[in-house]
Amino acid sequence: MSPFVEKIRQACQTCQSLLCVGLDPDPTLLPVPDVSRFNRAIIEATAESACAYKPNLAFYEALGPTGLSALKQTIAHIRQTAPEALIIGDAKRGDIGPSARAYAKAMFEVWGFDAITVNAWGGADSVEPFLENESRGVFVWCRGSNPGSGDFQDLETSGESTAPLYQQMALACSRWNTRGNVGLVVGATVPEQLAAVRRLCPAMPLLVPGVGAQGGELKSAVRAAVDPVGRLALINSSRGIIYASPGANYAAAAAAAARQLRDSINATLAEDGQGWPSS
Amino acid sequence: MSPFVEKIRQACQTCQSLLCVGLDPDPTLLPVPDVSRFNRAIIEATAESACAYKPNLAFYEALGPTGLSALKQTIAHIRQTAPEALIIGDAKRGDIGPSARAYAKAMFEVWGFDAITVNAWGGADSVEPFLENESRGVFVWCRGSNPGSGDFQDLETSGESTAPLYQQMALACSRWNTRGNVGLVVGATVPEQLAAVRRLCPAMPLLVPGVGAQGGELKSAVRAAVDPVGRLALINSSRGIIYASPGANYAAAAAAAARQLRDSINATLAEDGQGWPSS
Repeated sequence: MSPFVEKIRQACQTCQSLLCVGLDPDPTLLPVPDVSRFNRAIIEATAESACAYKPNLAFYEALGPTGLSALKQTIAHIRQTAPEALIIGDAKRGDIGPSARAYAKAMFEVWGFDAITVNAWGGADSVEPFLENESRGVFVWCRGSNPGSGDFQDLETSGESTAPLYQQMALACSRWNTRGNVGLVVGATVPEQLAAVRRLCPAMPLLVPGVGAQGGELKSAVRAAVDPVGRLALINSSRGIIYASPGANYAAAAAAAARQLRDSINATLAEDGQGWPSS
Repeated sequence: MSPFVEKIRQACQTCQSLLCVGLDPDPTLLPVPDVSRFNRAIIEATAESACAYKPNLAFYEALGPTGLSALKQTIAHIRQTAPEALIIGDAKRGDIGPSARAYAKAMFEVWGFDAITVNAWGGADSVEPFLENESRGVFVWCRGSNPGSGDFQDLETSGESTAPLYQQMALACSRWNTRGNVGLVVGATVPEQLAAVRRLCPAMPLLVPGVGAQGGELKSAVRAAVDPVGRLALINSSRGIIYASPGANYAAAAAAAARQLRDSINATLAEDGQGWPSS
């Protein structure tokens, strides 16, 4: 097992959870103005339920230097509060040659993320620089959860084989995965595509955005996303957890929402005989 | 003419140039350690020859807070030294919904770029938030100059029509261009694709990376890139100009390289009867 996959397994095992919490500080929704303080409270409230945290860099960049400083403090706080948790920088970076190498340095050395999301529109040489350190990994944006993701990702293509573009992306990532540190982003809102990607890449980690705290499709998304033994899928929820309450009780509400989502995911795994061993 | 296209035309007219200078501070190549000082010298040396500057954010992010501070100073210095020049943030951002809106805020409001490069893998709703302010624009990454860009961008696709993926991207951008503030990035290293995109989008601005300070293909790239009257193509050179000399004379060398490239581009325009009116 690669060091990256081992890190994911360990993070999930520690809290018996596949739940990833997205830390997306939107000023129009924040119940308190201080992002660092808000994130700190959310992290402390959810640490027992989350195997991973996923700050989306867009929200921090939009706040300027204050936001970047809050991101730095947030990363430090996750390391302190949940040392086993995976920290995924949702950056969707992608560029060519020297620029991609510079982004890899920014993401893994400057920020210190365990993994980042990558946009592979630029092909093999836009991804390779992110894979050099086998203990750090990427989740390549394969099939999004948004309506526009169908615009290109679902186009039928004829390369070596005929397939929708998102499947060509999954197959290419599979070929590039020589160090075991490539995963894929596939939305929970497109269960057919999610299942197709899992069939093509049975052993790769999947990062799955687009589930709410409730929602009847959670069960089918979990089943489509997990590997054959019910693991290696990180089911992400952002707003459903961190903005579970707009009031002063936001941390307690986040704790409850995270616990509930983790338990719902685990109930599905248990139904399928893939529950966590009792500790 | 849209405010964005008018701004490009004005920037080009002012210095009678289609040259964009890429400001990519690579620590392994910098002749002086201070990025802000280096960029300042480069900007002063090239202001008479360049209609646009294109800092690639990867290089600044890789340097941490110092790099971001240098980028801020660089933008201010361009505004002061070359007030008509277009400042293009080469960010290749792309994300969905609220995240794309946050990136638009970061790029146009926090940094204050006139235009940015965008990665449209996520489709219409990943681009739309960048287009809301018609005086700011985007250059969508259509067909790259790197070898890997062929991996997906050249795949044959069958959507409404059968075409290579980069052409589907060009056509989609053309549809999204309701405010006249969408352009495309197409590499000079792929003259056939460049010509095809120009045929599909005769009136859209193109940003063309991949030309060196010399190179026999410059002439054909310029001819393929410009609009029917010899305008609306920004021909970018980064390393060929800013690292023209590794020594203390780097600014003078950059000035000479920029002048030479601008003049070569203009010679091609003049040969085709599309030269600048004498002032």
